[in-house]
Amino acid sequence: MLNNEMTKRLNIEYPIIQAPMAGGITSSKLVAEVSNSGGLGMIGAGYMTPSQIREQIKEIKHLTSRVVGINLFVPKEFNVNENDIKSAKKILQPICEQLNLLHNDNLEIPTFNNLLEVFHEQIKIVMEEKIPVCSFTFGIPSKEVISELKRNNIILIGTATTVREAIEIEKSGMDLVVVQGSEAGGHRGNFILGHQESLVGLMSLVPQVVDNVSIPVIAAGGIMDGRGLMASICLGAQGVQMGSAFLTCTESGAHSLHKEGILKAHEDEIVLTRAFSGKWARGIKNKFIVEMRNQETSLPEFPVQNTITQSIRKASTFQNNPDFMSLWSGQSPRLAKIQTVGTLIKDIISEAKKINKSVIN
Amino acid sequence: MLNNEMTKRLNIEYPIIQAPMAGGITSSKLVAEVSNSGGLGMIGAGYMTPSQIREQIKEIKHLTSRVVGINLFVPKEFNVNENDIKSAKKILQPICEQLNLLHNDNLEIPTFNNLLEVFHEQIKIVMEEKIPVCSFTFGIPSKEVISELKRNNIILIGTATTVREAIEIEKSGMDLVVVQGSEAGGHRGNFILGHQESLVGLMSLVPQVVDNVSIPVIAAGGIMDGRGLMASICLGAQGVQMGSAFLTCTESGAHSLHKEGILKAHEDEIVLTRAFSGKWARGIKNKFIVEMRNQETSLPEFPVQNTITQSIRKASTFQNNPDFMSLWSGQSPRLAKIQTVGTLIKDIISEAKKINKSVIN
Repeated sequence: MLNNEMTKRLNIEYPIIQAPMAGGITSSKLVAEVSNSGGLGMIGAGYMTPSQIREQIKEIKHLTSRVVGINLFVPKEFNVNENDIKSAKKILQPICEQLNLLHNDNLEIPTFNNLLEVFHEQIKIVMEEKIPVCSFTFGIPSKEVISELKRNNIILIGTATTVREAIEIEKSGMDLVVVQGSEAGGHRGNFILGHQESLVGLMSLVPQVVDNVSIPVIAAGGIMDGRGLMASICLGAQGVQMGSAFLTCTESGAHSLHKEGILKAHEDEIVLTRAFSGKWARGIKNKFIVEMRNQETSLPEFPVQNTITQSIRKASTFQNNPDFMSLWSGQSPRLAKIQTVGTLIKDIISEAKKINKSVIN
Repeated sequence: MLNNEMTKRLNIEYPIIQAPMAGGITSSKLVAEVSNSGGLGMIGAGYMTPSQIREQIKEIKHLTSRVVGINLFVPKEFNVNENDIKSAKKILQPICEQLNLLHNDNLEIPTFNNLLEVFHEQIKIVMEEKIPVCSFTFGIPSKEVISELKRNNIILIGTATTVREAIEIEKSGMDLVVVQGSEAGGHRGNFILGHQESLVGLMSLVPQVVDNVSIPVIAAGGIMDGRGLMASICLGAQGVQMGSAFLTCTESGAHSLHKEGILKAHEDEIVLTRAFSGKWARGIKNKFIVEMRNQETSLPEFPVQNTITQSIRKASTFQNNPDFMSLWSGQSPRLAKIQTVGTLIKDIISEAKKINKSVIN
């Protein structure tokens, strides 16, 4: 039951992918240990510079000889104007004061062309370093990029939040599709329709996608254990991608306050916000989210707002103050544990087998 | 696998409850046929007068000798003031004009005491008619009501959208709990926290509730077939409650435009709105929802707004115009079919058994 087209294509033992969480969470230890334990470790390289990526790949190759993957953000055009930046900074001023932070007047807001250039350099490294699996969020790369990666025999995974997005991903020639349910932590991956229309729960999303594409479907969002894995398989998925469950593992690079935050949180404290980055994302409700609530729909788009809040998030982290950190989490914090990756994966598989024997039959 | 504490307590063959959809959808034929097919048929009596309830029970008793249940709304105090009503009517004026509808100036807005009185009469009928199962939405009835129903050997089911609500339902002495995921169509059942905090996907909600209560858990929201039933069981639920899947059955009392609307809809067209009733609910995006979008957070609470929009919904229905009808639906419209209740239930069970044999093992 746990060996299927997904595990074959990815050349892994168990149908479990560690979500490519960005922002330093996917440490080399975490990625390598997931692959060493039979899953697929993924580098969350969305925000990484080409040289950082190269360095991490080198580190990981020392820690595992198994397949690992990488995730990149597909750049999207965005609006940016000085007035919006000024007013966003003004809104953030009281928070800067609480952190004794002088607001940076020389923000380097990237242009779309900057991002596109970085993306192409990232792609080049993926090919040069022969990373066997590459997944994408926030869109579908150009035909040229997809063809080039496929010529290099790299397995491609897209990320969809609706049936329509999954269909487009299949049409583009990608090999597998991760479907991100509304339960998922961190940034929403919708790229065709708006935020509200793309918040579909996994129980609805998985079977509807499965009925409409032929490539293997991987369920993501709120899955933390063998129950979630088996439920996803019943819905027609071939496996799962899990973020928060790996985030709280001892090997992950997440800040200890982030891990503790998830461990203490309840599902009704995990909310959606666009105040951190300009893109809707799910995390633990904290002072920042609450204070920004009334203004959040008028803030600049991603990645502009993300650049503007960077100093706040850094200062909050540096001061060990969780109030203004982005504490991303899926909707199942009550199921989180601090444990090693090895224990997590072993427990998922043994629980899945137990369900197979006792609950189902 | 499909016989458990839930089916024993409810004295049914299959762990499938037909959701008690209000507003005329749960016709006597639908309710009776669900029970005759081995599930639990439920009367959606929330908006029904005591005499309407008595009449429907009589009808159903002619159609089935099996267990049927009933659902009631637990009344909650609400604010109402003339200015809010005036401004809500003003907002609705352009829509009234589109429907050639004179706005009713003599609206009979019920008071909390009116609703409480009706609720107690409804409870009295449930006991007099010896309805064996009674479920509740929007809250937990008083200790006195629960004790009285239990003295009459009526099995009680609560509706929860978060773990905390499920725990309170168990503490109140109810026998089972329906957990309503964010996928669910119609009105949200949250009664402790706000709307946003209570939108938890089933993949997250079910296992977290199961870990925190001892009474049987029933999954609801977006479940349409054997895949959803088996997935729910893997997550730890004992069974499912399904709304939209029964709404499109030939026996249901839903308007044909409502059934057709679901059949044509995609998951990304099913949205949340409070414009119809003052309470957040999920349905097919139509002209009414789009036109009210900008004002919806400032409208009066339930049931005030519900009373104000009643003439609009009625006129729209009467004119066979789906633009201003409340076309409630869960997030899985692509899985909907027009079929008989008997076929639906037979197919769910045979698909569940097939998954049990092929996918899982």
